[in-house]
Amino acid sequence: MAEEGVRTADKRRGRTGARILDAALELFNRDGTGRVTTNHIAAHLRISPGNLYYWYPDKQAIVRALWARYAAQQAALWEGAGDDLPTPREMVGRLGALTDLTHEYLFVARDGLALAHEDPQLRALVVASRERTLGIVGALARTWRADGLLRPVDDARLDALVAALWTLTETWLAYAVLHDGATDPAHGEALVLAVLEPYLAA
Amino acid sequence: MAEEGVRTADKRRGRTGARILDAALELFNRDGTGRVTTNHIAAHLRISPGNLYYWYPDKQAIVRALWARYAAQQAALWEGAGDDLPTPREMVGRLGALTDLTHEYLFVARDGLALAHEDPQLRALVVASRERTLGIVGALARTWRADGLLRPVDDARLDALVAALWTLTETWLAYAVLHDGATDPAHGEALVLAVLEPYLAA
Repeated sequence: MAEEGVRTADKRRGRTGARILDAALELFNRDGTGRVTTNHIAAHLRISPGNLYYWYPDKQAIVRALWARYAAQQAALWEGAGDDLPTPREMVGRLGALTDLTHEYLFVARDGLALAHEDPQLRALVVASRERTLGIVGALARTWRADGLLRPVDDARLDALVAALWTLTETWLAYAVLHDGATDPAHGEALVLAVLEPYLAA
Repeated sequence: MAEEGVRTADKRRGRTGARILDAALELFNRDGTGRVTTNHIAAHLRISPGNLYYWYPDKQAIVRALWARYAAQQAALWEGAGDDLPTPREMVGRLGALTDLTHEYLFVARDGLALAHEDPQLRALVVASRERTLGIVGALARTWRADGLLRPVDDARLDALVAALWTLTETWLAYAVLHDGATDPAHGEALVLAVLEPYLAA
């Protein structure tokens, strides 16, 4: 019974940690990461600031934890394809799922560059996650080229193409929201296709 | 003499306003807009916070003034070409000047989306400036298409191409700085060319 009591307390604590992240995500997305304080998050959850600090020593720790969650979910999208490598058009077809995820973590796409600049730990996390993704997409693009799915281009052009595609994939939603709130995945797909399609073998 | 005294005082005040903007720009670029307060700016200039507030009621007013200055300088780059419309390759050649400007106002490229989300007045300014630029580049692209400098593409593709090119132009430097501080304009040109070149008529 004592052991079970410990497990229940552990679970309860785990729930509190997750609830803090969920509440922070909601507030960061809605109000902007810069304007939300740990006190806002605690008040939103009706918990004491002390309880919040037990889990996360400061706002930056919450930002980092959310970003790590986002990066892990993103990696699962890219890597969840199993052994069958997707074709270029299948990759474009996956952008809808990525748009949903980016929408869920909109503060990352919108406030990300600013946050990473201000926190060296977060910056290391962001750069590592971005380089991992660029590496995955870059390796895929090299396979496409070897398989004749892409027109022949040299390595420098292929790297620039991958960087251009990934930058658009990462940023288009935040710009769309800034302009008119339009978050139709078809808009993001149109941008990516405008860049990718001329490189597809006929 | 009295009149001259007034003019000198006006000039001095004008200088103070400009010095506040220059100091804020330096601190925003270096430390991140979120971490810099009006007190930091006043201390950096060795003026009283009251003197700063005489010019700018709050940090947001300084951010907006700097952004307006950036947008005006950017517009001058696009519109300073005179009556001779630049060719696509001449436009790419101008990216060096734009990179210099973006580097000077790095906080705009880096913190911009986050700042615009948190301040409706700034957001209106940013969206208007961005739509103006997209309009100028879009009109130019339609002229290129009509003149046979671009392969024939439909309007939807042309708009997506322009949006993709502009998003890369706006964001590549901030990402490059995040990764390794590399700010060679050739990197930005490579990204833009990877998108544009397949559309150029042979």
